[in-house]
Amino acid sequence: MALSEFSLIDRYFKKPLASGAIGVGDDGAVIPVDLGSKLVVCKDLLVQDRHFFADVNPVHLGHKSLAVNLSDLAAMGAKPVGCLLGLALPAIDPSWLERFAAGLHALSERWACPLIGGDTTSSDHGIVVSVTALGTIAGDQTGLLRSAARVEDDIWVSGQLGAADVALRILRGEIDDAPGRLVDLRLALERPEPPVALGQRLLGVAHAAIDISDGLAQDLGHILKASAVGAVLDIDCLPVHPALEGLESGLIEQAILSGGDVYELCFTARAQQREVIAAIGQQLGVALTRVGQICAQPGLFGRYPDGREHKLDVPGFDHFARRSS
Amino acid sequence: MALSEFSLIDRYFKKPLASGAIGVGDDGAVIPVDLGSKLVVCKDLLVQDRHFFADVNPVHLGHKSLAVNLSDLAAMGAKPVGCLLGLALPAIDPSWLERFAAGLHALSERWACPLIGGDTTSSDHGIVVSVTALGTIAGDQTGLLRSAARVEDDIWVSGQLGAADVALRILRGEIDDAPGRLVDLRLALERPEPPVALGQRLLGVAHAAIDISDGLAQDLGHILKASAVGAVLDIDCLPVHPALEGLESGLIEQAILSGGDVYELCFTARAQQREVIAAIGQQLGVALTRVGQICAQPGLFGRYPDGREHKLDVPGFDHFARRSS
Repeated sequence: MALSEFSLIDRYFKKPLASGAIGVGDDGAVIPVDLGSKLVVCKDLLVQDRHFFADVNPVHLGHKSLAVNLSDLAAMGAKPVGCLLGLALPAIDPSWLERFAAGLHALSERWACPLIGGDTTSSDHGIVVSVTALGTIAGDQTGLLRSAARVEDDIWVSGQLGAADVALRILRGEIDDAPGRLVDLRLALERPEPPVALGQRLLGVAHAAIDISDGLAQDLGHILKASAVGAVLDIDCLPVHPALEGLESGLIEQAILSGGDVYELCFTARAQQREVIAAIGQQLGVALTRVGQICAQPGLFGRYPDGREHKLDVPGFDHFARRSS
Repeated sequence: MALSEFSLIDRYFKKPLASGAIGVGDDGAVIPVDLGSKLVVCKDLLVQDRHFFADVNPVHLGHKSLAVNLSDLAAMGAKPVGCLLGLALPAIDPSWLERFAAGLHALSERWACPLIGGDTTSSDHGIVVSVTALGTIAGDQTGLLRSAARVEDDIWVSGQLGAADVALRILRGEIDDAPGRLVDLRLALERPEPPVALGQRLLGVAHAAIDISDGLAQDLGHILKASAVGAVLDIDCLPVHPALEGLESGLIEQAILSGGDVYELCFTARAQQREVIAAIGQQLGVALTRVGQICAQPGLFGRYPDGREHKLDVPGFDHFARRSS
């Protein structure tokens, strides 16, 4: 049985909403905004063969489509309030859609970020997923801006680095899969957990923040540029994902500095906040690691255990550059 | 010279914003929302070979990508406040991007709806454009909801019907192009003017409203379903685009009832509002035509000049159904 666009939306994506909100099924979604709060909006586009493979588990794709946006909200310190889904599909496969919707809705319910609208369409060219996420921050807060880093701030990273990058390389056949390694790493690539709670807890505690979805070096670089500062990273302090153990050290360094698809936060904060930040990490059960310091001299520098310190010229994760590789 | 994703965003899409707002260049866009207002969000996905051809004039595509969303905001009665752009491109063509951005920015400036964020990525599968538009309505208004039609309401349509559908058929070679016809019609297809001012003026005047981008019959059908009512359309009152003159009458009826890509409003209002609505049309220079009436009996009925009245079973514009045609 062929499903029309509208029964597809009704069947898979329509959910009851809190009162006062109007969701899927009108020309636009209506959300009452708390008095005096600021709205934060972000939007990410996931394209088949670029951000995922056609045979991806649709539960994971539904999850990841929202996760990458919740990660952006987290990097602003925003509390999610709702999301919209744009979905272009070559064909309607009810089983695929059901699983995609299940992955999306599960994460959406976990963070109280209901699906309130969007658009579905047919595509002659593969699957495209575009999610827009909306969040709020209290009106007296400015959010965790990239431009807010200050000289002598500590630099922190949440979670562990390198997993998604190594998973992608194994899937592409660029490096060998040690027994069982891919199993541990693949979830980091396909089912990242966005640091939503952490972002909100860092409001008023951290200065600048960014999600490192394009790789630590490149995304920290955005903070440095926006804040007109530099940074020194203590290379041996960077938290390496345990499943990378046994890999060649150059490969590990590249994965943790340049590997993309990391839905963790890099943030800066004054040294006086160390205990507060450690307590937040403990309360949330999130690893928070101090990995360096903001300095006045422009540029990104690596400090090695042997005392060497040199400028890092790490290629970042560029969605266009990667094409030619 | 290859442009990276970031210089692409900086060069083509970054614009200065009003104070208090943070736009392109952080993890999310921040917008101060007026005290007590409601936020309206909508999102449309345009996919190559489905919604536009690869050789479309990029100025028109930039315009239309935003226009289809402003049309949805208009159908809610919302005032635009900002938009986000998701853009997947097979390659970076600076001249194409410059023209696309020019078309988008020109419309965005006209309606004070600045581009505040988004995402660009490479695509192996053709061009995909996803715009999210944000608007507000005053907190004491509910917006022009599909569910608000009442029995005995007049049914109104803005603008003229059928142009985009006939343009598409000529471009596909399904009907012959009478001399010069396509020139007049093609702008309706490729460069629609969203009824932004009209939507806002109808708040508090009209009951239900919808933009008829999927065709009058189908979109009016959404109002009827959401409001649990029926409607009678006076077929000879429907405003036909003048460039359709001379076409076969069955083809005209199909184009005006079922033709998609019409960025005009269909709305309902009490008979007591006729003079107010006529005055709004005159002030805005927009044709507003009374085309029928809401009735209690479910279904959509056509009333013909000879007195016949029968149920319309018009196939709507379904983004998936169209694929198999």
